[in-house]
This record gives sequence, structure tokens and C-alpha cells, in this order.
Amino acid sequence: MNTIIGYYSTKFGELWNLNLDDLIKEAMDGILAKTHIEKEQIDAIFFGNMLGGIVEENLLLSAHIAEQLGVHIPIYRVEGACASGGLAFQMANDYLKVHPNATVVVLGAEKMTDIGAEEVTKALASAAGEDEQSVGLTFPGVYALIAQLYLKKYNYTEEHLATVTVKNHAHGVLNENAHFRRLVTVDNVLESPYVAFPLKVLDSSPISDGAAALVLTNNTELIKKSKVAHILSSEVATDSVSIAKREKLDELKATKIAGEKAFKTAGITREDIHVMEVHDCFSIAELLAIEDLGFWKKGEGGARAKEMSTQLHSGSNLIVNTSGGLKAAGHPVGGTGIKQLGEIYLQLTEQAGERQVKNVNYGLAHNVGGSGGVAVVSILGS
Amino acid sequence: MNTIIGYYSTKFGELWNLNLDDLIKEAMDGILAKTHIEKEQIDAIFFGNMLGGIVEENLLLSAHIAEQLGVHIPIYRVEGACASGGLAFQMANDYLKVHPNATVVVLGAEKMTDIGAEEVTKALASAAGEDEQSVGLTFPGVYALIAQLYLKKYNYTEEHLATVTVKNHAHGVLNENAHFRRLVTVDNVLESPYVAFPLKVLDSSPISDGAAALVLTNNTELIKKSKVAHILSSEVATDSVSIAKREKLDELKATKIAGEKAFKTAGITREDIHVMEVHDCFSIAELLAIEDLGFWKKGEGGARAKEMSTQLHSGSNLIVNTSGGLKAAGHPVGGTGIKQLGEIYLQLTEQAGERQVKNVNYGLAHNVGGSGGVAVVSILGS
Repeated sequence: MNTIIGYYSTKFGELWNLNLDDLIKEAMDGILAKTHIEKEQIDAIFFGNMLGGIVEENLLLSAHIAEQLGVHIPIYRVEGACASGGLAFQMANDYLKVHPNATVVVLGAEKMTDIGAEEVTKALASAAGEDEQSVGLTFPGVYALIAQLYLKKYNYTEEHLATVTVKNHAHGVLNENAHFRRLVTVDNVLESPYVAFPLKVLDSSPISDGAAALVLTNNTELIKKSKVAHILSSEVATDSVSIAKREKLDELKATKIAGEKAFKTAGITREDIHVMEVHDCFSIAELLAIEDLGFWKKGEGGARAKEMSTQLHSGSNLIVNTSGGLKAAGHPVGGTGIKQLGEIYLQLTEQAGERQVKNVNYGLAHNVGGSGGVAVVSILGS
Repeated sequence: MNTIIGYYSTKFGELWNLNLDDLIKEAMDGILAKTHIEKEQIDAIFFGNMLGGIVEENLLLSAHIAEQLGVHIPIYRVEGACASGGLAFQMANDYLKVHPNATVVVLGAEKMTDIGAEEVTKALASAAGEDEQSVGLTFPGVYALIAQLYLKKYNYTEEHLATVTVKNHAHGVLNENAHFRRLVTVDNVLESPYVAFPLKVLDSSPISDGAAALVLTNNTELIKKSKVAHILSSEVATDSVSIAKREKLDELKATKIAGEKAFKTAGITREDIHVMEVHDCFSIAELLAIEDLGFWKKGEGGARAKEMSTQLHSGSNLIVNTSGGLKAAGHPVGGTGIKQLGEIYLQLTEQAGERQVKNVNYGLAHNVGGSGGVAVVSILGS
């Protein structure tokens, strides 16, 4: 069976002294040291990155990695906007199904702060549809439209959304690699400036630099001597890039389809999942994710979020985004999907330190590209 | 066994009235019509594209394809510079090894003429190393350095290089989708302006728009009712992105490694290959390719090229770049790898019309990213 045997992450944040190559190098060196793997043991590398061609004017990043390591193995760069990391993982898992006795690195990295905030917002909007781009809608705008509908349709307020941020910042305090490590209150969120009504600065994940890496293997020798999480499933689904082309605005169909497939393949139920990382690029997105993955009924999210039941030590059976989520841990887009899986790996192998959830046997990671044009759902078991 | 059951290509050239989405749509509609496949029969799509984020400011192109087709299947965008198409094919072939009874589309597309020639040259240079970029070396410059060394080391002249162009333009005349369909002479090449000494305009592949698609399947029903080429192997290798980091300047190690692996996996010899498409982004590159793939000894290329033995109807056992190559057929970078495989498919299924090589049982396609940072070699059989 395919397994994860190690995880390394750089700090996420505004890392002014590191470029994309530096981030890749730290993550590769870090994961090799952590897993005691020699570069000669790696059969292939799957690399998720969105903006290398735009922010750093570097494409063919596979050859950057080959050059750094001095290897000639297959290296693949996959781009699916903010789901690039999750896609790289999903492809690596498929790769191991064809290659017995093989070991691969899955890497995700993004350098975002080398261009201005307006420029990077425009670069990110390259993952929006023509319908959105042509009227000047960037991602905060797209998710704001979704949030407006959601709040109105289900009779919630901005306070309901704010609770997501409060929880994820509380988790981020416990994550040594998080972009933000400070508590915020509902009032802090409500008083922060609007980005696009009803979403405010503190409803929104930040622009971060960072890289993360996993080693995946089906080599029985390596599995024996490692702390292991088993990959029960990893599934991907797509949808129209433009939200204007969707039947419903308050659900992400790609998440629903990938989630259904992931549970079917894994052969477990929602009740078995006690910890998960979902794609909270904006506070509203965490509610949609938990609903669309089938844990909450559609429209329940606002009320359930306000109960704070998915927060560490709440005593509930489902804790969400212990890493701090995209909101507090940071969102270096290509790195996010890998960080999510790494967090679940840490939880399943009881290496999550102060963030450890007790008695966890199964975990889920959910990574979204654009406003739901692609989604990847992966289920791991201990 | 994995097979190719159909190929469609748009015209390659300066297609002012088509954007990237239009090119993708024509290629997808074209391949579905040609293979009589319904979109519901497609299990996944592998899409090779290099410059979408820069030229058209569109990333997450997988969701553009999902939107056009109205599907929710896995769609992967792979980027390995000018080898993006070959990589997409290689990954699709791996995918079919895990998924029995499956059918996938492999698509490659590039829109290059929506920005100026200087801008696109700079965009392409994003696939060069820091060593090259920092001194202003674009790809013509990089390949010019290689050509200078090659001509001096093996005592050839610019005329030897020119013969490659003469041959590929002669082939391009016979390809209805080629960017250039006119004969050129050695004198035409020698009299064309220098781009970077010793390479001239007519040593260089053009900036083209275009898209191409293949259907791959292991579904026995589909195989039975189709004209089929079998995929014997498809292998990828990487190398340092920067030529300054290489041991040798007059060979591409990635081509050598991928080629060796491809022949080993296919279980055939060089003598079995009677037709191949190699990556002639510049005239010098075709010589290196044929040498590095093991058909000619290192340094022989200049003399062998001048014999014109790889031209259609030469009577020799190895005909190269019947499509016209990148030089005459055009080089929409993400589309090139697919066009190469499509040309071999046409040859093996005797659908190559005026370009048909007689008695072909095996063919090879060779696709390079950057100046050899990645190479993909695939071998097909009839």
C-alpha cells in the first residue's frame, strides 16, 4: 500500500530573503534529512506550483530541481492554481500504483511576495474565468458573491463567518511554521477593513511564501522503519472555471464529486474522520467545504461554525484545520495542498505536538483550485 | 496494451483569430469527431501547455477544458516548457497502466502570437537557467553557443546546419497543417539574417499558435474498431536547467537517458525504427538529437545531414521529421510533443498521405524542454 513516511515544511510567511529556488532547496534538503533518504533512492518528484512563470519568470522548474539535486529522474510540474499541491500528491499516488518498490517526493512551493500585492492579486485572478476577469472580479470578489448569497439564503451574519477565522487563528498559534501566530476575536474580524463585502481582511487568507514536501513510498523496507500514514484514497474532480456557468453558487461541485469518490475508494464513512484540513482561502470557503464534503447539511455551516465545535479541545469528533488553515498558517498556493496532507500525516503519526488530536485513525485533506474549478480530496489512515 | 486510436491537429501558424480557448476547443471537438468518441467516454485529460499564464494570463486551464466540455473528470495541466506535450503523453500512458478499460485525451496547445516577438522570446527564456537569464541569453543564444562548439569541434560549416532546414521545409510542403509550406534552398538559409551566430532565421523554428490532441485507450472494444498504434514505451529524464552546469555542451544528457530507457522498455533496437520526429527547435538540435538517441555517432551529424539521407524518398531506412519538424510544421510549444506523436501515429497507421514512409513498423518521438532540462522519448509500434 502507498504510504507517507515523512513531512517537512518551511516557515510560511513573507520570506524576503528567500526566492523560489531557495524555498525548494530548503524543502528538499529538509525532507531528505527528516526521512534519512538519499537522493539516489528517489524515483520521481511531483512538484506543485502555480505562479513561477509570472512572479519569478521561471518555468521548467523541474530542471531547477534536477540541477539542485544533481539527478536525472522524472520530475513533473503540475499546475492547478491553488490545488497544484493536492494534484501533485494525487498524481504521485497514482504513480506508485504502477511502480512497485518505489519512492517519490511530492513538493509544493510558491514565492508570492516578490511582486506587489496588486500584481499578485491579478496573477491569482488568472485562475478565474473570463466572465469574472472581464468585469474585474478577483478572487476576493468571487468568494464575496458566494458569501453574500450564503448569508442571505440561510439567514446568517458576518459574525458567523468571523468565527471561522477566530478558530483558525487559535490553531495557528500552536503551529511553529504558521504565517500568523496570534489570537483574534470576533470583534477584531468584524472591525477589519472590507476587501469585498461581506469579506474583510480577516476573512481572507494571506499572500505567503513557503514550501512543503512529503515522501511517499510503497517500499516495504522503508515503511517498516518509518512513522507511516496510509493513503486510502486521493481523488480529483473538475468544474467550470467560471462561477457564472454553475447551477448553484453556494456549493462547489468539484468538492462534492471528489469527496464522494474519495470516501468510496477509502471504504470508510464520514464518522470515521476525526481530523481534517479544508481549503479556507476565505472564511466562507471553510463552511462550503465542510458541507460539500458531506459532514454538515447545506446551509448548516453558519450555525455549526458559531458553536466552535471544530476547534481543538472542543470535545467534538471532528476537528478542522489544526494547522491554522490557509487563513492563519498562510497560503503559498502551490505549497498549501502539501501542508494540508503533512498536517494530517503529523496527526495520524502523533507528531502534531500541541495541536495533536487524540485517538485519530483517519484524516482528510481538501484542496481547491480557483473558485472550485478543481478539487482534490485525499483520505489517510494510521 | 496502451494504444493511440486517433489524432487531430489544428493548423499551426499565426492564427490571429483564435485564442487559447478557441485552439483547445477546435482540438477537442476535432479529436472527438475523428475518433467517434463521446465526451462521456473520456476518463481523464492530460494537457500540455507552457505559456498560458504569461501570454493569455490564464492558469487553471484544466477548468477551462472542463467548462467547455461540461465534464467533471480529472484534468491535469503539465508544464515542462517545450516538452509539455510529451510529458502529458508520458503521464497519460502511466495513467492507463493503473486504470484498465480507460480512455484519455492527451492535448497540447499554445497561443504565442498575442504578445510581441520580444515579449514571447523573454517568456520562453523563463525556461533557461539563471546563469543564462542573468547575462541576457535567450534560447537562440543558448543553442548558438552549442552550435559554435559543435561546428568548431567537428570541423563543419553553417552549410551543414542549413541542410536540416532544407529537408524539413521539403517535408513541410506535404503537411497541410504546417506553419510553412514552401521549399527553401541552402542559399536561402545561408542568406537569411543571423539571430545569434552561427544560427540564422532559417535555422530557427518559428513562434506559432496551434493545438493537437490524441486519444489513448486500453479499452479492447475501442481498440478493435480503430486504427491503432501501440505505445511500447514513453520515458522522461531531466538535467540541469543551465547549460553552464553540464559536463558536455554538445550533447543533451536528458535525451540520452530517456532514449536508453525507452529502447530498453520497448525491447527493440535502433535498426527497427524507420521514422522519427525529433526536437529541431534549431537546426543544430536535430543533429544532437539523432546522435544522442544513438542513431549516429557523436560528431557525425553534420556529415550525415548533408547526405540528406533522412529525407523522404531518400531510400534510407531512417526518415526524420516527416511533419516538417518544429522548423517547418511550426512550434506552438505545448502542442509540439503531441504533433510529433500524432505524426508517428499517422505513419504507423498509413494515414500520412504524401508524407507516408513505406513499410514502417516502429517509430519514435523525441521532445525536449528548454535546452535539455527535460526530454521525453516515446516509441510506438504498429
